Amino acid sequence: MPPNEPATPAAGHPVIGFLTDFGLDGAAAICRGVMLSIARDAQVIDISHTVAKYAILDGAYLLRSAVPWLPIGVHVAVVDPGVGTDRRSIGLRTARGDVLLGPDNGLLVPAADRLGGVTEARILQNREWLLPRTSATFHGRDIFAPVAAHLALGAPFEAAGPPFDPATLVRLDFPVPVVEAGRLSTGVTYVDSFGNLRLGGVAADLATALGPMEPGTELAIEVGVPRTAPTLVARWSRTFGEAARGELLVYEDSSGDLALAESSGSAASRLDLASGARIGIRRA
Amino acid sequence: MPPNEPATPAAGHPVIGFLTDFGLDGAAAICRGVMLSIARDAQVIDISHTVAKYAILDGAYLLRSAVPWLPIGVHVAVVDPGVGTDRRSIGLRTARGDVLLGPDNGLLVPAADRLGGVTEARILQNREWLLPRTSATFHGRDIFAPVAAHLALGAPFEAAGPPFDPATLVRLDFPVPVVEAGRLSTGVTYVDSFGNLRLGGVAADLATALGPMEPGTELAIEVGVPRTAPTLVARWSRTFGEAARGELLVYEDSSGDLALAESSGSAASRLDLASGARIGIRRA
Amino acid sequence: MPPNEPATPAAGHPVIGFLTDFGLDGAAAICRGVMLSIARDAQVIDISHTVAKYAILDGAYLLRSAVPWLPIGVHVAVVDPGVGTDRRSIGLRTARGDVLLGPDNGLLVPAADRLGGVTEARILQNREWLLPRTSATFHGRDIFAPVAAHLALGAPFEAAGPPFDPATLVRLDFPVPVVEAGRLSTGVTYVDSFGNLRLGGVAADLATALGPMEPGTELAIEVGVPRTAPTLVARWSRTFGEAARGELLVYEDSSGDLALAESSGSAASRLDLASGARIGIRRA
Repeated sequence: MPPNEPATPAAGHPVIGFLTDFGLDGAAAICRGVMLSIARDAQVIDISHTVAKYAILDGAYLLRSAVPWLPIGVHVAVVDPGVGTDRRSIGLRTARGDVLLGPDNGLLVPAADRLGGVTEARILQNREWLLPRTSATFHGRDIFAPVAAHLALGAPFEAAGPPFDPATLVRLDFPVPVVEAGRLSTGVTYVDSFGNLRLGGVAADLATALGPMEPGTELAIEVGVPRTAPTLVARWSRTFGEAARGELLVYEDSSGDLALAESSGSAASRLDLASGARIGIRRA
Repeated sequence: MPPNEPATPAAGHPVIGFLTDFGLDGAAAICRGVMLSIARDAQVIDISHTVAKYAILDGAYLLRSAVPWLPIGVHVAVVDPGVGTDRRSIGLRTARGDVLLGPDNGLLVPAADRLGGVTEARILQNREWLLPRTSATFHGRDIFAPVAAHLALGAPFEAAGPPFDPATLVRLDFPVPVVEAGRLSTGVTYVDSFGNLRLGGVAADLATALGPMEPGTELAIEVGVPRTAPTLVARWSRTFGEAARGELLVYEDSSGDLALAESSGSAASRLDLASGARIGIRRA
Repeated sequence: MPPNEPATPAAGHPVIGFLTDFGLDGAAAICRGVMLSIARDAQVIDISHTVAKYAILDGAYLLRSAVPWLPIGVHVAVVDPGVGTDRRSIGLRTARGDVLLGPDNGLLVPAADRLGGVTEARILQNREWLLPRTSATFHGRDIFAPVAAHLALGAPFEAAGPPFDPATLVRLDFPVPVVEAGRLSTGVTYVDSFGNLRLGGVAADLATALGPMEPGTELAIEVGVPRTAPTLVARWSRTFGEAARGELLVYEDSSGDLALAESSGSAASRLDLASGARIGIRRA
């Protein structure tokens, strides 16, 4: 579902979005320092630096969720267990006009899709844009940050390095919803900081599986295949406050995707589920 | 106690203060993206996004502590278990000249009081300022962020929506100090990240209850009503380093309120207390 | 090892780097508010605010790691168990042109050394730059933030307060590498958020102890003196992805120092080591 787009063409301070699994102890700040050393006027927007370590799928989910709401700009994402190996360092221009920078491990592609798709893909090989000495373990600092800054200054994307065929991009598998007779089978795409379970699929998928529903309709949540936990009851709701404290609810989240929450609580703790887990939804 | 005010009338970049319980995984960045899409020159100051989930009292305490030290501006706070229900989305103009935006659940009022009180209250109903599609679960993104940005751009507060009577604002109960004969009974208003217990009341309350005290005076801390833990001894101190490592101290914190700390340690862990807990202070 | 320097002389927005152990619940934002109230155009770069509480050594390590990559500017660091006692509040001008501000407890010196050394040291005693009322517990807000802002506005360092002899600076002991016959004895200087153990010493120290090594050379890691854990095997590697998942590697980190990691895991958890611990490295 396309977001209700607030983004405007770049004007004034160029924007650099920035997402990593670097944590909060300085590595992201070092990259920001490099960016601002080159492009002093840039507005760096930290999307998140607490992505679970090496969790490419989580990073891809969060980047995809965030970039549509950021101004058009250059967005850097680094969740990169393969840093220093032969995985490619890439840039993707999107239909909306952004450039996404990061490793070619699938991290950038879902975000690019949300921004209208990849219109141009390049390998970051312009030595003049990289830091003079490139370490084997910190490409965020040595490659992605300075390239982002040069692009933020207005340098042409074509100068970043040679083009490559987007069909060769590494891609990830997000959990896919499967409409069955009277049941929607889907998976957890992300557990947010509230413990809400973001699910694969949209409200229309649920309606296809279960027919149209009034708010308050009771749903049976089946956990595990085969089910290892008792079936839980949730309500189809518009928002958290419509459910009683501690009640489960299935709702359309703010990205238009399905989600499962506990009102004023953590559905992830209650159900003991993490991203990748499969669940089934039926009428109760 | 009024802070020693550094705030200056807005000049240059308009300032938007921002406090939520959204955590660090992207929701706050999405709001920042919306703000900067509309008001590219704004300085967004993240006050905190790690307020305990749904902890309106903690959020109100932190907002009240921070805003006096921020430049005059628009300040957004979102700790909002009632998002999407009929709770009002409001703006409060303060005597200092700020506008506070957030849900009408008590979160904003203590901060407004610290800024001289509410001079004008409005319901945020200007559809032209909201995002085109307003979700039921993410008013930070869809309502508060774009309204903040429009105000930061200089739009008049009167255009935000219809006025309402500040007497109808939802208000919170912070723990209140009670002066008894030879004893100050008070409560924990907040546990800070050092584990220091911030308490209701000021140094003058303690002096009223216990008489004037020299630094180093021994105090008895009574936990629980009736006391369930042994009485602990603390010293009336000016700062942490005046107490020996591991010693408890009662002091006037940097906001002018009473507080209880362990030197180089965590009083909250030592006493096993959370916000809302009552304690008594006597001379030892 | 000197970093490959991206810093440029200040131009455009003045930069203020900022590192503390204040945590994420508002104290750092209050300081930022004070800075921006005085110097509205400043770019405040948060290096880290999650330094372990009172961990001066960790703070010194992180500050030293970060500042070479930040633009030349004013950098504030506060890990300050002695706040409000007679420890000095100081400013250090560096050969690179930065000014470092913080308590005189050793926190600033390693960073100053990385920036070419201290060229001028002053005690922060200019009352006109401090907030009108200086608390005993929050010098970040009342002293360091406003002094940083005045310097960022271009005020001369000489006006900060009287000079003092840098030889009197409090200094810290970082773990020092010791080259023995066929063995490098060293210590953990910092455990980063990935659980990688940063070690005292550089690749040349290891080569001196063990002779030249090919990538992939097996090394024996001895933990404890005397060894209390079985010897572990690690490989001398260029980067994480060269080792198999779960394998240990010794590598030259992105600052040019030695480090010990587990590929896609946490060496700190695996070896149960914290900063200050000693280890030995031999050929396996």
